[in-house]
Amino acid sequence: MKSVKENISAIKAYNAADILKSTVLFSNIDDDLFRLFESEAIIKNCSKGKLLFLQEDDAEFFYVIASGWVKLFRETLDGEEAVVDVLNGGHIFGETAIFDNSIYSYSSQIVEDAVLLMLPLSLLKEKIEENSKLSMQMFSAMSRFRRYQDKELEHRDLQNAPQRIGCFLLRLCKSNVEKDITLHLPYDKTLIASRLGMKPETFSRALSRLRKETGINIKGSTIKIDNIEQLSDFSCSACSSAYPCEDMH
Amino acid sequence: MKSVKENISAIKAYNAADILKSTVLFSNIDDDLFRLFESEAIIKNCSKGKLLFLQEDDAEFFYVIASGWVKLFRETLDGEEAVVDVLNGGHIFGETAIFDNSIYSYSSQIVEDAVLLMLPLSLLKEKIEENSKLSMQMFSAMSRFRRYQDKELEHRDLQNAPQRIGCFLLRLCKSNVEKDITLHLPYDKTLIASRLGMKPETFSRALSRLRKETGINIKGSTIKIDNIEQLSDFSCSACSSAYPCEDMH
Repeated sequence: MKSVKENISAIKAYNAADILKSTVLFSNIDDDLFRLFESEAIIKNCSKGKLLFLQEDDAEFFYVIASGWVKLFRETLDGEEAVVDVLNGGHIFGETAIFDNSIYSYSSQIVEDAVLLMLPLSLLKEKIEENSKLSMQMFSAMSRFRRYQDKELEHRDLQNAPQRIGCFLLRLCKSNVEKDITLHLPYDKTLIASRLGMKPETFSRALSRLRKETGINIKGSTIKIDNIEQLSDFSCSACSSAYPCEDMH
Repeated sequence: MKSVKENISAIKAYNAADILKSTVLFSNIDDDLFRLFESEAIIKNCSKGKLLFLQEDDAEFFYVIASGWVKLFRETLDGEEAVVDVLNGGHIFGETAIFDNSIYSYSSQIVEDAVLLMLPLSLLKEKIEENSKLSMQMFSAMSRFRRYQDKELEHRDLQNAPQRIGCFLLRLCKSNVEKDITLHLPYDKTLIASRLGMKPETFSRALSRLRKETGINIKGSTIKIDNIEQLSDFSCSACSSAYPCEDMH
């Protein structure tokens, strides 16, 4: 743990309370319990490329992301990588290991420099068992994630590749802004392709088609969207939710 | 509820205690609590084709399947059907509505004649909040379902269509039998195709290829598998779990 503590001085800008408050899990719990989690939290600075843990590792901690991007993935028997998810600030990961025999069910790697908050899984497990407010928040978070996975599966089946990229872009937009939006792709295109279940070459072709269909403007990793309605009409027609939707994270 | 009670005489073979015991949720809970759920349970006989509830309906009950098959689905804005899941005996559905503002997040329809047990969601919610053993069982069930959804997403991305059908067949096999297995497809092929995220024509072609690759024998809805190893080698090479796997339901 020494290396973790040495890092703390470099990341003073983040405090545990703010990071904890950014997640659904720790909103709406008793002050005493909140302060306990706050006092046990370790803040960690991680560079792009770092592997945090591997699938099947014994799980000691769960993580809250303060900033940056983290990839969760698994390897198939013939060596392909399956991207489970790519998460950013406000998301937690590793927490369900408490219900999975304390084993991580995926590997995790930093894909853009990140600041993470770590907490012991044993503490979470103990408090969930004894505190019904916390356990209801945990249910709420898990149920939200279940709806998100449902929707992801639906998209794999019913949306074509350009629609799926359109959906990915819509999720990066702030829902209260409708015109002249400029976005930057948050991590590299190869990973976005994997995250959306596409080969890189499919992704390139699909992005070109999306541009033709919706009039978005693409330069490198910068995307300009003049008319969000045209994009949402195109992508959300093959989805069971309308834009802006609540089921995505 | 009258029509429900009238049906009870026809389905005497099923008793509430046995159905409840068949699910993870009600295993390992206190006797008093088990008897309370047992006493509140309504057993219902449902014919193929019946719609149980629609997406966005107010949710009053959750269901445990004693026998038969139930399809959970959603409709996209342009009228396509997205099959969320197709479930059989021992599975529950509708239960997560207690964390979703008491609204069902999908529609449900009987696809093969079924016997269901119904319980009030309000009772489940109340007992989960006050009984930590029950809430831990609920977490366990949700976490298992999360791993299952993870795996489904992985398969959509990395398994080809014949491998996905092979995986579907492997899940119908009893894991302790290795040779001379005869299976019957549990519901019609069009629905199996939707369940696996394929068009019916893709399904037919993929089934033919699966036969060539693995030597399985197909006649109508009867499948004979002489050598399960050949089938599992073919399907599970593109998966992060080996056969027999624990993450599928």
